[in-house]
Amino acid sequence: LDSQIPFPRLALIGVGYIGGSAALAARRAGLVGAVVGCDVNPESCRQGRARGVLDDVAESPAAAVAGASLVLLAAPVGSLSGLITSIAGHLVPSATVIDVGSVKLPVVVQADSVLPSGAFVACHPMAGAEHVGVAAADPDIFSGRLCYLCPGTRTRAEAVTAATRFWEGVGCQVARLDAALHDQLMAAVSHLPHVAAYALAGCLGQVLPLVEANAMPGGPTTSLRDTLRIAASSPQVWRDIFLANRDHLLPLVVALEQQVHALGKAMANGDAKALEAALISGQANRRRLLK
Amino acid sequence: LDSQIPFPRLALIGVGYIGGSAALAARRAGLVGAVVGCDVNPESCRQGRARGVLDDVAESPAAAVAGASLVLLAAPVGSLSGLITSIAGHLVPSATVIDVGSVKLPVVVQADSVLPSGAFVACHPMAGAEHVGVAAADPDIFSGRLCYLCPGTRTRAEAVTAATRFWEGVGCQVARLDAALHDQLMAAVSHLPHVAAYALAGCLGQVLPLVEANAMPGGPTTSLRDTLRIAASSPQVWRDIFLANRDHLLPLVVALEQQVHALGKAMANGDAKALEAALISGQANRRRLLK
Repeated sequence: LDSQIPFPRLALIGVGYIGGSAALAARRAGLVGAVVGCDVNPESCRQGRARGVLDDVAESPAAAVAGASLVLLAAPVGSLSGLITSIAGHLVPSATVIDVGSVKLPVVVQADSVLPSGAFVACHPMAGAEHVGVAAADPDIFSGRLCYLCPGTRTRAEAVTAATRFWEGVGCQVARLDAALHDQLMAAVSHLPHVAAYALAGCLGQVLPLVEANAMPGGPTTSLRDTLRIAASSPQVWRDIFLANRDHLLPLVVALEQQVHALGKAMANGDAKALEAALISGQANRRRLLK
Repeated sequence: LDSQIPFPRLALIGVGYIGGSAALAARRAGLVGAVVGCDVNPESCRQGRARGVLDDVAESPAAAVAGASLVLLAAPVGSLSGLITSIAGHLVPSATVIDVGSVKLPVVVQADSVLPSGAFVACHPMAGAEHVGVAAADPDIFSGRLCYLCPGTRTRAEAVTAATRFWEGVGCQVARLDAALHDQLMAAVSHLPHVAAYALAGCLGQVLPLVEANAMPGGPTTSLRDTLRIAASSPQVWRDIFLANRDHLLPLVVALEQQVHALGKAMANGDAKALEAALISGQANRRRLLK
């Protein structure tokens, strides 16, 4: 019976890897009934149907949320403000709206002002972000992964309960965190590593002919593979994250640039002591960060 | 019978993670008889005995190589020149000398001049470099991994055969490469990723209080874990590698610094187009590098 399904109608706005994976996992767990999708790219909706993510496709975000008990905003962070504005007048009174973005304060502030019903719960499931596109959607990626909830000042308690039910239902471990603190923490433990990976990948363009002419038997080094893994992530998703969180991120990017410069200077000067001290310090920081 | 053992006496100069792992693997494969070790740190020799790596400990490199059929130099790259000089007059005529360093041209040039018997084969087994210390030695790390051989102009064919037998015996896939080309290639696919990882780890010192005060349920992000993995490597080993290969490495370090700067500048300017273009380029480079 539909009445036993927690969310009889799910609207998925932004049909990509994370949203598609969440919808598949929710369907498998019996959390959702019909899933209706909407994306700026019609091809994503076509793939979403083919992948079994979507039952139906809507022409606009406003049309998608009509009658939806749960709205999952899974578009790049930079488009959330416009999406929230465009759906605000079309939600049913009991609807819960959640997102999956990696930056929380801007969307919390905007939803608090535009969705005064308190329907919005800012969410950040931390899973599989280097994959791109709904065709690769995988319902298993949330198993055991952390999902931060960052309710705003106006968020209804029932909406937090609904969001918790959804994310725990797809396999996440849910934790609450202040939105500003979330953004500050993510700048350090997620966004800056992405800057480092993209910068490394970017500057290696000049050695592509060398590397391709001397392909390594058995494939590239594991050090290259691991340090570049997250540079596979969506450029559009990460462009938006970097811009949305730049107040927290920029000071760290400047510090990263200074560290690279200091290592290069120690090499250029043949300064073994300074070089060793910098590596010892980095090694010690790593141990504390990952413990 | 000892005569059936390919290398009846192995001298291990530098008793650490890689050398210890190679000695354990060689013993297990029946490649070596007695293993005698020597290290500047007596504690490493003590641990080497406890770990089953060493049968005997020598007072000096010269004493260790006396009577050895195979000499494995597994000390940091910066100490190889001194070690080669100190053992040169003490090798038996049929001995083969191999190393495990990540920079090849300097040691090849030096061995060609100091060991005119052609005993030296420069080797680079690419395995497990982020682990530190003989106590962690693991004979399985070479299985299926690439080992480059970079013979010098004077290297005897018999020495190359012996080195190949040793590395294939412990599980490696052996490939030959010109020493200068090896160093140029490693600067790109291994040494620069280490610079990036150590720089990231170094600049995150300032966020340790934030990260420790907000420990993430389930542990840190996988992006942080993967990008920092190789910053666990030995600071002494990597100090030497960075200095020994700085002619190839420094231009790439400068390029990395410029990339980080460019990403920060695009963020500061709110330049979404420039940011996206840089990320698209990095993502495309990664795909070509790792294919």
